[in-house]
Amino acid sequence: MTTEPVLIAGAWQVADSTGMFQAENPATKEALAPVYPISSWVDCDAVLDAAAAAFVEMRSMPGSRVAEFLEAFANAIEARADDLVEIANLETALPKSPRLADVELPRTTGQLRQAAAAARSSNWTQPVIDSANNIRSCYGAIGPVCVFGPNNFPFAFGSASGGDFAAAIAAGNPVIAKANSSHPGTTKIFAECAKAAAEETNMPEGIVQLIYRTNHDIGQQMVTDERVGATGYTGSRGAGLALKRAADGAGKPIYLELSSVNPVVFLPAVLQQKGAELATEFSGSCLMGTGQFCTNPGMVLVVKSEAADQFIEAVTTQFSEAPVGTLLSGSVEKSMHQSHQILTAAGAEVLCGTGGGSGTGYCTANSLLKVTGAQFLRDPETMQTEAFGNSSLIVVAEDLDEAAAVLSTLEGNLTGCLYSAEDGSDDAAYDLLAPVLRQKVGRLLNDKMPTGVAVSPAMNHGGPYPATGHPGFTAVGIPGAMLRFAMLQCYDNVRATRLPEILRDDYEGQAQRLIDGVWT
Amino acid sequence: MTTEPVLIAGAWQVADSTGMFQAENPATKEALAPVYPISSWVDCDAVLDAAAAAFVEMRSMPGSRVAEFLEAFANAIEARADDLVEIANLETALPKSPRLADVELPRTTGQLRQAAAAARSSNWTQPVIDSANNIRSCYGAIGPVCVFGPNNFPFAFGSASGGDFAAAIAAGNPVIAKANSSHPGTTKIFAECAKAAAEETNMPEGIVQLIYRTNHDIGQQMVTDERVGATGYTGSRGAGLALKRAADGAGKPIYLELSSVNPVVFLPAVLQQKGAELATEFSGSCLMGTGQFCTNPGMVLVVKSEAADQFIEAVTTQFSEAPVGTLLSGSVEKSMHQSHQILTAAGAEVLCGTGGGSGTGYCTANSLLKVTGAQFLRDPETMQTEAFGNSSLIVVAEDLDEAAAVLSTLEGNLTGCLYSAEDGSDDAAYDLLAPVLRQKVGRLLNDKMPTGVAVSPAMNHGGPYPATGHPGFTAVGIPGAMLRFAMLQCYDNVRATRLPEILRDDYEGQAQRLIDGVWT
Repeated sequence: MTTEPVLIAGAWQVADSTGMFQAENPATKEALAPVYPISSWVDCDAVLDAAAAAFVEMRSMPGSRVAEFLEAFANAIEARADDLVEIANLETALPKSPRLADVELPRTTGQLRQAAAAARSSNWTQPVIDSANNIRSCYGAIGPVCVFGPNNFPFAFGSASGGDFAAAIAAGNPVIAKANSSHPGTTKIFAECAKAAAEETNMPEGIVQLIYRTNHDIGQQMVTDERVGATGYTGSRGAGLALKRAADGAGKPIYLELSSVNPVVFLPAVLQQKGAELATEFSGSCLMGTGQFCTNPGMVLVVKSEAADQFIEAVTTQFSEAPVGTLLSGSVEKSMHQSHQILTAAGAEVLCGTGGGSGTGYCTANSLLKVTGAQFLRDPETMQTEAFGNSSLIVVAEDLDEAAAVLSTLEGNLTGCLYSAEDGSDDAAYDLLAPVLRQKVGRLLNDKMPTGVAVSPAMNHGGPYPATGHPGFTAVGIPGAMLRFAMLQCYDNVRATRLPEILRDDYEGQAQRLIDGVWT
Repeated sequence: MTTEPVLIAGAWQVADSTGMFQAENPATKEALAPVYPISSWVDCDAVLDAAAAAFVEMRSMPGSRVAEFLEAFANAIEARADDLVEIANLETALPKSPRLADVELPRTTGQLRQAAAAARSSNWTQPVIDSANNIRSCYGAIGPVCVFGPNNFPFAFGSASGGDFAAAIAAGNPVIAKANSSHPGTTKIFAECAKAAAEETNMPEGIVQLIYRTNHDIGQQMVTDERVGATGYTGSRGAGLALKRAADGAGKPIYLELSSVNPVVFLPAVLQQKGAELATEFSGSCLMGTGQFCTNPGMVLVVKSEAADQFIEAVTTQFSEAPVGTLLSGSVEKSMHQSHQILTAAGAEVLCGTGGGSGTGYCTANSLLKVTGAQFLRDPETMQTEAFGNSSLIVVAEDLDEAAAVLSTLEGNLTGCLYSAEDGSDDAAYDLLAPVLRQKVGRLLNDKMPTGVAVSPAMNHGGPYPATGHPGFTAVGIPGAMLRFAMLQCYDNVRATRLPEILRDDYEGQAQRLIDGVWT
């Protein structure tokens, strides 16, 4: 059987494969026609060689050239928008409109153009000059970056199109994209666009390459390879931690976005004052996109009260009555069931759902579970099991002190939210809980659901382990996200003509530079 | 036998110990009188509790208060300068003057005062504000930091006084200092000064704590503990990598400074033009401080020529004739011998030294070894064995292409230098080799030995693995070094009065902030 070719060194080539796979249409559970190869080390080795060769060219390339590539790529994507939306819908069951065509695609091209602007301005390199000592430093490209994209954003976090991709390329690195196995056809079109853009802008052949899948051991070998600079991974905790162990052992930076339950705390007074409104807001946020967002509110913390009971009742009704969306894949469905089993075995009460949905595709009924604070505190690790999808766990604490204790046992999360009354009657409770939550999350929100992740320089889509692998970096937001794929490069007494342009005394560009302590 | 007390929660306490040890005077090989405890987990647990409690206070403390502590500490150190110099000289055999009293001590207090200034200004937090989206972010303290200091800078890199210490405290974190076993008495005096400064400035009891030593498994347990934010380690590769494996597995950031051979390349024309001068410069740099600097030039690369032969002959003579310094400890002596055995077993020719020195203390004759480029390339990993101390390996490449091949096999290093002719006759060679070396090192130098490490905002004392654990961070230079002990904290829609002062619209301080894309 002929499998789809892989993109190595600028050419679509027959894969050296150890197996093959097909994607499925999650709405019908039927296999889609194209057959994709599982690449052997031979493919990976060739890809790494081409990436290393591309990096030799790219590491001395002005940012403006990289910007031209990124812009040509964004244009190429727009030219194939219909194809992309069509196939992504088949492979993920995400709605064509507004989700894919009107939200995620513009976000993706917008991100690429922001990355292009950052590459062109060079501000991201943070040039620092110490004139008296003639020591100069800035961030520079780290080397070929492996990108493993997640299943839930086939465009905006796609391995050949998304945030990690844009950040890695804009920082001057070639990208080796490993497609997510649930949407290989979508990723292939992005790689076609990247190839065309690379040719149009005269970039090295290995700037963007694509393989669809490897066995786990080969994936691990890849992220430890000496030709690799760093890795970006978004996906399941198990696979991510295996890659992390391998990369850590080889001293290769790896940035992971793993699991996050994104706790939302509704403080007593605000729940009393507008519990019904909050129930609707929460239900809408949690079920949007069938709950398949990294920042989905998978845990709610309230303090026992009549208002809390009413809130829970309202959310339960809304979850029970809301339509059930299709999940991204059979493995998402299976993983949700497993998580629900773990939570119920640990004592969680099922308020609604956890059984199969009624659709023809992969689905699970909208699910709401409940535990007391005391139950949570008996086994906080198990109670933080992420049920990725249209599911949430409500924790009812006995009082604020128990709520604080619950928060203090949390693992790292991407986000944490606190809703509080406008009139100040929750302020003491806020002051008790917010400092505890602050250290556990990358992004702290007030009075707002965490689901939206603006592409902003002030965004932090990151957080303490195991939400990510390092709490100092963000995966969303240009230029911050680029620093993951950079190394700090210092020049000591290096002759003026040999310095990167941005560190020279006669630099004429617009980038802001910290010269002798002052931003100039 | 009574052992020295440990500093836990602001009080000198009897240790819960599993054993004891004494420091030695390396100049006489005699044990020094004080007996220090090897702490059990009971001590570590108490220290971690106190650090966690201190952090609760410190995480909401204005930088100006932290600055007051650091300045009081610097003053307290100066008041005990004579004691510190006296005991450090006994414990390390480093000369009292100029080294300890006139170079390292002022560097240490200068570093602490720079850190104080950074804490006060808050510039290091890199505040970013997106007004339209009301998203704001800055770096904030990460939590209690374990500092494991090295043997070679008892003051400036000391675990209760040095660069990691200053950076961790200035970023708002308590420090748990683990003394280096070769200079526990020196570290104790620093802890006394810190305790006095903490009392004077009304800081929490757990801001600085000291234990002298633990067994390896307990050290590993400590860096993985949930109460710990991050770890800074400078020392041997073996112990460092064991800590790294433990910390990585728990998702705890760990910053390591391990080994580095710091390659120095003398290009053909400059060697031809002033080989004699360069030989003197190199010998002086390599033997200074008995070669016990992280950035000691442990590897020299030249291309075969008559000038190279003359250079090697001159260096050999100088190494043979120069006085032999005392090494820091018996383990440094032993480790040098082992490294020399590994290198000679792999085929390195001994030009001079490698045998024992003639002093009464720990020492090794000034040692110079030589291999051809071809020999190096047959087993580059072995040939990069660091011989920490008064030793260097000269690699003689057949031609420039072989020199490039040698550089391309290098592991990560802190520094790399290229010497080239002023008249441009080495420029083509520079253009061939510099890009290869650039990716392998944190700091690239021209025409200058790497031994000096200026405390400058533009400094990078870091580099790719295994020189350090992550190529994006520096261990020297304020404020850069502080970012290692920080997490990125984002505030999304958080009410104005609840924001850290530096992120508020009505902020009146002097810190530079990136507001809607412009540094203000």
